[in-house]
Amino acid sequence: MTITITAFENSPDRGRGLARDMRVRWALEEVGQPYEVRLLSFKAMKEPAHIELHPFGQIPTYEEGNLALFESGSIVFHIAERHAGLLPDDAGARARAITWMFAALSTIEPPIIERATARFQERDQTWYKQRLSMIDERIRQRLNGLSARLGDADWLDGAFSAGDLLMISVLLRLRESGMLREYENLSAYVARGEARPAYRRAFEAQLAVFTAASAS
Amino acid sequence: MTITITAFENSPDRGRGLARDMRVRWALEEVGQPYEVRLLSFKAMKEPAHIELHPFGQIPTYEEGNLALFESGSIVFHIAERHAGLLPDDAGARARAITWMFAALSTIEPPIIERATARFQERDQTWYKQRLSMIDERIRQRLNGLSARLGDADWLDGAFSAGDLLMISVLLRLRESGMLREYENLSAYVARGEARPAYRRAFEAQLAVFTAASAS
Repeated sequence: MTITITAFENSPDRGRGLARDMRVRWALEEVGQPYEVRLLSFKAMKEPAHIELHPFGQIPTYEEGNLALFESGSIVFHIAERHAGLLPDDAGARARAITWMFAALSTIEPPIIERATARFQERDQTWYKQRLSMIDERIRQRLNGLSARLGDADWLDGAFSAGDLLMISVLLRLRESGMLREYENLSAYVARGEARPAYRRAFEAQLAVFTAASAS
Repeated sequence: MTITITAFENSPDRGRGLARDMRVRWALEEVGQPYEVRLLSFKAMKEPAHIELHPFGQIPTYEEGNLALFESGSIVFHIAERHAGLLPDDAGARARAITWMFAALSTIEPPIIERATARFQERDQTWYKQRLSMIDERIRQRLNGLSARLGDADWLDGAFSAGDLLMISVLLRLRESGMLREYENLSAYVARGEARPAYRRAFEAQLAVFTAASAS
């Protein structure tokens, strides 16, 4: 059955691979599953046909036959559960990899998103600098814990897993802040993720969409 | 094998069931699994023995034999995968229930946590009122989508699932804001969750911890 995902017709990150379709593309590349992409304008994302697929009017979605899913974490998990390469076979190691998936999305990502939202919504406010330093303090608390746990290992728990895929995707959103550079092992961890052939293929695919949109 | 979870020795929510051990207690009650609780002081949560279990020094954790997990989402999923009652058997319905688990934790909860953090950290700042209204606007956008999708159904996708368990747990954190009352169907949805016998048992158990701590 054909897998179809949705992505931005014209991504606000200008093809830097930070939109959430990238996680799903990367997962599909890791397990070697072909997929099609339906591109959406900001307007189309809020129309009833898309709200039917995604109640919050966002991307990505995942369609395969009668199955329709949203939430990048859930889609990556669905792919990882059905195809070898993203979750270990051992039950304990599998549960720990899933733990890192949730940690990426519910512990590490929220303050990083809050930072991006503040940069967008509060940039012109008198309080902006003070707020940014409060958020950065919270991000550093989480990164301290993550960096200490990773230590000098290549991946968070044994072999590369869907937990690493989501964690690296989330950390990449911090790169422009310069904060990642404060953590040598986390920078190297992110670079290891970006060097994976599956990551490269996914990155090029989303960049091609942006390049085509800006040429037209 | 004995299941042991961790919880606050003296919960900052004063026994209102908003701490994240409540989700795990509720899941264990739904599937009828007994468990033990190890209570932690704020100091003990930051000590090496606990950081070994939870790299971010938080509660809850879950131990069962050699397996140690953190992240309430991952723990609830682990329980739901091993015992009947929290995930449907049908593969499509199961994937959709897991989607709601991720939606609860990565789409609905983050702005609700941001609100709680602002109330704690920014209450005395000149900008507080303006910030609160920006956050509330974002929360309402998400609640609008959730309320429209729920409609007049009892649960988010067919039978009660781990997705509802997490979503209701997250929505309960909004109650004191009064915002839930703006959505009649979401208020009724949360009340249906609270009326479940498993919820009641979990609630009483966490309340008993707080009552004992404040009496001593």
